[in-house]
This record gives sequence, C-alpha cells and structure tokens, in this order.
Amino acid sequence: MKKIINDPSTVVAESLAGLAAAHADVLKVRTEPAVIYRADAPVTGKVAVISGGGSGHEPMHGGLVGLGMLDAACPGAVFTSPTPDQVQAAAELVDGGAGVLLIVKNYTGDVLNFETAAEFAEGDVRTVVIDDDVAVKDSLYTAGRRGVGGTVLLEKIVGGAAEGGYGLDEVEALARKVISQVRSMGVALTACTVPHVGEPSFVLADDEIEIGIGIHGEPGRQRVPHMPADQLVPALLEPILEDLPFQSGDRVLLFTNSMGGTPLIELYLAHGIAERLLAERGIVVQRRLVGPYVTSLEMQGMSLTLLKVDDEMLRWWDAPVRTAALRWGV
Amino acid sequence: MKKIINDPSTVVAESLAGLAAAHADVLKVRTEPAVIYRADAPVTGKVAVISGGGSGHEPMHGGLVGLGMLDAACPGAVFTSPTPDQVQAAAELVDGGAGVLLIVKNYTGDVLNFETAAEFAEGDVRTVVIDDDVAVKDSLYTAGRRGVGGTVLLEKIVGGAAEGGYGLDEVEALARKVISQVRSMGVALTACTVPHVGEPSFVLADDEIEIGIGIHGEPGRQRVPHMPADQLVPALLEPILEDLPFQSGDRVLLFTNSMGGTPLIELYLAHGIAERLLAERGIVVQRRLVGPYVTSLEMQGMSLTLLKVDDEMLRWWDAPVRTAALRWGV
Repeated sequence: MKKIINDPSTVVAESLAGLAAAHADVLKVRTEPAVIYRADAPVTGKVAVISGGGSGHEPMHGGLVGLGMLDAACPGAVFTSPTPDQVQAAAELVDGGAGVLLIVKNYTGDVLNFETAAEFAEGDVRTVVIDDDVAVKDSLYTAGRRGVGGTVLLEKIVGGAAEGGYGLDEVEALARKVISQVRSMGVALTACTVPHVGEPSFVLADDEIEIGIGIHGEPGRQRVPHMPADQLVPALLEPILEDLPFQSGDRVLLFTNSMGGTPLIELYLAHGIAERLLAERGIVVQRRLVGPYVTSLEMQGMSLTLLKVDDEMLRWWDAPVRTAALRWGV
Repeated sequence: MKKIINDPSTVVAESLAGLAAAHADVLKVRTEPAVIYRADAPVTGKVAVISGGGSGHEPMHGGLVGLGMLDAACPGAVFTSPTPDQVQAAAELVDGGAGVLLIVKNYTGDVLNFETAAEFAEGDVRTVVIDDDVAVKDSLYTAGRRGVGGTVLLEKIVGGAAEGGYGLDEVEALARKVISQVRSMGVALTACTVPHVGEPSFVLADDEIEIGIGIHGEPGRQRVPHMPADQLVPALLEPILEDLPFQSGDRVLLFTNSMGGTPLIELYLAHGIAERLLAERGIVVQRRLVGPYVTSLEMQGMSLTLLKVDDEMLRWWDAPVRTAALRWGV
C-alpha cells in the first residue's frame, strides 16, 4: 500500500488539519468529536443543513461546507459511519435557532447514527435520507438503495434554499422533492485500498469492470469485460432513465462524477457521450457538473447522476456558493 | 489498459467535445486544428493570454480558459506538444488588438512550436517560458528545467492582470516576475499509461517512489523506498526552499497539487504538513491552492509549488475568475 499518510489511525485527523489550514476563510474544524463547520456559524435565523458519512469520499462532505451549502459535516473514519455524538456536536455548533436538517445517505450505520442524534438533540432536528443509486436494492451496508452522487446536488440545492431564507418545513419539502427526482449509477475499473485495511477492497481482472459499484466498493449488478466508452456510458445511463423514468421533454441536471482515480480527459469524454444520448432522447440538459465530487479514494471509475429539475431547483442550484470544492457567484 | 475511451486516436477530440458541452457558458472548442477559447473571444482592447501543451494534464490548460485567465489553450495529443498551426489559429481567434502573450512550459517541442507560431503570427505576439521544476536540469524532452505546477499560478495572475487592463508590456513583465519567483517539485507513487502507448510509462516497485518526477513521467532525482508523509513532504519542500531561496518573513502562495490519482484525503494531509513546516521557518502562507490542477493522467503522486508573492501578484490572484476548473468572484 503506497499512500501519502503517516499512520492509518491518524489519516482523518491529519487530513482535517490540512483542510482547515487551506480553507480558513470558509470553514473550521473541531476534533473529538470531529466536525467541519462554517467559519461564520451559527448563522442566526437560518435553517442549518448538516451532512456527513464515512471519510474517503472527498470532497464530499467536508469540501461542501460553507456559504450556500452545508453548515457542518461529520466525517467518520474511512468508509465508516460518523458517531451520534459527532452529529449532536455539529447540531449544537451550527444551530441558528431556525431548525436543523440532517442529510443522510442510505447506509444502515449512517441512518441509525444520524437518527439517534436527531432523537437526543434539542430543538427541531429533522432527517432526510437519500437513496439515489439505481444499481441494486439491499447491498453490503444497506437496506434499500444506496445514497451516492445525488447527495452533492441535494446539498447544493437545499443549502442554497436555506441560505436564501427558506424555513425548515420548506427546506425539508424541497429536500424530499430532490430525493424523489434524482437517480445515479456507477462503474469501477479498479478497486481502492482503505488505509486501515491495507489491501484492495475487491479484485477486478485486468480486462474486467464492475457495473453498478457502490462508493465503498460494494458489489454492483455485474462484472463484465471492459468495453468502449460508447457502450459503457449507455450501460450506466439506461438504467437511470428507465427507473424514474426520465422522458422526452424532461429538463435535467447531468452530473458526471469521477470515483477519484479517473483522469478528467476520460471523464469529459464520457460526459460528452451522455450529453449526446440525452439529446437523442429529447431530454434537455439545463445544468452540468463534471468532476471528482463523490469519490472512493483512488478508485478508477465514474458515475452518472440525473436530476429532473424544475425552476425552484434551478434557482437554488444557481445561487451563490462558497465551499472548498464548489464555488460560484461569490 | 482499462480506460473510459473508445479509441486512443480520438481521445482528445472526444474529450474536447465533452468539455465544450459541459461549459458552453465559459468556452468554445474548434477542431482542425484544436483550440479551446473563451466563449466571448476576442475581447477587444484586452491583451490575449494563450497557453497549451500536451493533453493528459487536465484541467490544465483547457479547464483554465475563461474570464480572468486564459483566452485560449492549444491541446496537443496526450503528452505531445501542440503544433504551430494550433497556436496560430488560437492567436487569430482571440487577438483583441492589444497583443498576445504565449505562456509556454519549458519542453523542447513546446518552446519550438510556440516560438515558430509567434514568428509567423501577425501583430505583437510575445512568448514567456516557465521552468519552475527544481528537480532536475536537462531531462527527457527538456533543455534546462521543466515547467510544471507554477504554470497554473502564472496563468491566473497574468490572466487576471490582462483582464484588469494591463498592456502587453506590463503583462509580460508581470509574467517574468512570477516565473522568477516560483519553484516546484513532485513525486510519483505510481506510473500512468498514455492511451496510444497502452503500457505504463515506467515501473515502480510496490514499495518504491520517485522523487522529482516530471509530469510526463520523466526521470526525477531518485527512486527511494516509500516513506511516511512526514518525511515525504519535507523531501519535496526542502529543495524548493533552498533553490530560490525562500526565507523567514517571505510571503508565499502554497500550491499542493495532485498528479491525478491521489485521493484528496491524502492531499490535504500533505498540505497540512507543508503549512506546518513553512510556519516553523517563519514563511507566511498568504494564499493556498489544493487539488488536482496539473495532472499526469491517473498517476498517484503530488507536487508542491511555492510562489513568493507581492501585493501586485495577490491583487491579480484574488481577481475574479470563471473557468471550468477555477472560479471565484463571479
């Protein structure tokens, strides 16, 4: 295992120190328990939006903390749920008196720990669970579908609305609408190695890929021989389109995500194919996001996410954001 | 070789199509010869700033085209210099009547082809060559030092000044000042595979790294056993500090760059160590950039770049920028 680390047991804490040093204008980090939070938190009178999950998916979630997006993120150990006390500490740090929304990806440990925190928290703390991965139902770590790339879109739109003055009821309703209209699917070309494990999470042959992979390397739909991009992109896109379903005339946000180790030159190539396929079906791409936002350490691979948008979602997607990973308008 | 491509011979063209589809608000792409250029080019009365080089280092340079940065970028084949006719076509597309500055990384082919283009171009077209890599003098593809991570900082600062109204003499002088004060060094943990080659560019053993690697995998200073981050970061930073030299009281911009395949969790960990080492020496980090900006396809590894800044450089670093990869203030 060759990684730029000192000790697997201190990777998250040392990485958070670097994050804090790099982005002191945007965020702060506290330890024991670990929380990344907005430098100007709490923002009085604003609904606080909090997320979190296992580390190793950076920039999600710590790189999404800041104006117009998350008030706080709770980083667990690599690929491990954060604890309830992290979530409670986050809620106490950023609660501005207008309530708290917890955005949880649908993994058994995450759901349990966030809901436990919500139960014991003071004030109005609500939970929404995102489960956008169409690949499989019930998987390693999950009952039901997994939460993956759609989480970034959800956090941007909901974070924008909270910044823009939505109350907790409105924020929660918007979150549930986004969750109902977003779908994703991914593929792995290579595995990744969790630092405290020291071995790849799974093994793919030299000419083999896994369609429908989870962001922790959980099994997908099938292992198949590697294929050209013109076949691979439809293999991800078709199940997404069929699921909602997305239809001619729908307006969408297309998110082409790298799992971490895939070069941008390949990611843009795949994005171009997805744009073409959607245009052929009469689906109108109105916004795009391309890059490594929901990663699995150094895994090579990608995912596609489609969100069926309306004017309300576009308004908050376009709203100013200032985080380590996403920034515009400010 | 597992890559998300169709055919090695069409990778660049297909990727550019995806880039254009993703960022139509910022840039346009023309083909034969390939040029990426600002959507609103030419900007009348503004000095045009153009760069380019082999593909495979994305987001540099195409992802740096837009308001406040590059007017155009000329993408060669992967790890291959662009041709003089690409550079000439770019100059014709974006020349706003106030002259053109070509920013060239110091590789023999790049320098030759950009200078040939400058010679045959109409109008006032000047060239600056960046050679910030302290690792080696004379290397595969290079006479003298290589141009690496400092290029992104140069393009941001010079692009900002050109947007802000600097004339060609001022832009050129600022570029030469930045080049004189920026130094970099990189390390590879793994090799990368050029699509049209199909095999890794070099081979590192399971416990071996290469200090001083070039961004095309050119040999560095030494192959050594892998080491903890607390030793690796100083091994990159010390040669940089000694070279200029950087001294106590100096104000700097610290750029911690991923070679592509290194997870952000590791990159921020390394960044934190670099911040601490600089603080211990009394060197004042006034701005930071952390992320994959000058990559070598899927190579795992990183580089550090230090720029000794002054108020003029900070002013244009902070100025608004809107590109695919860097965006703030707009």
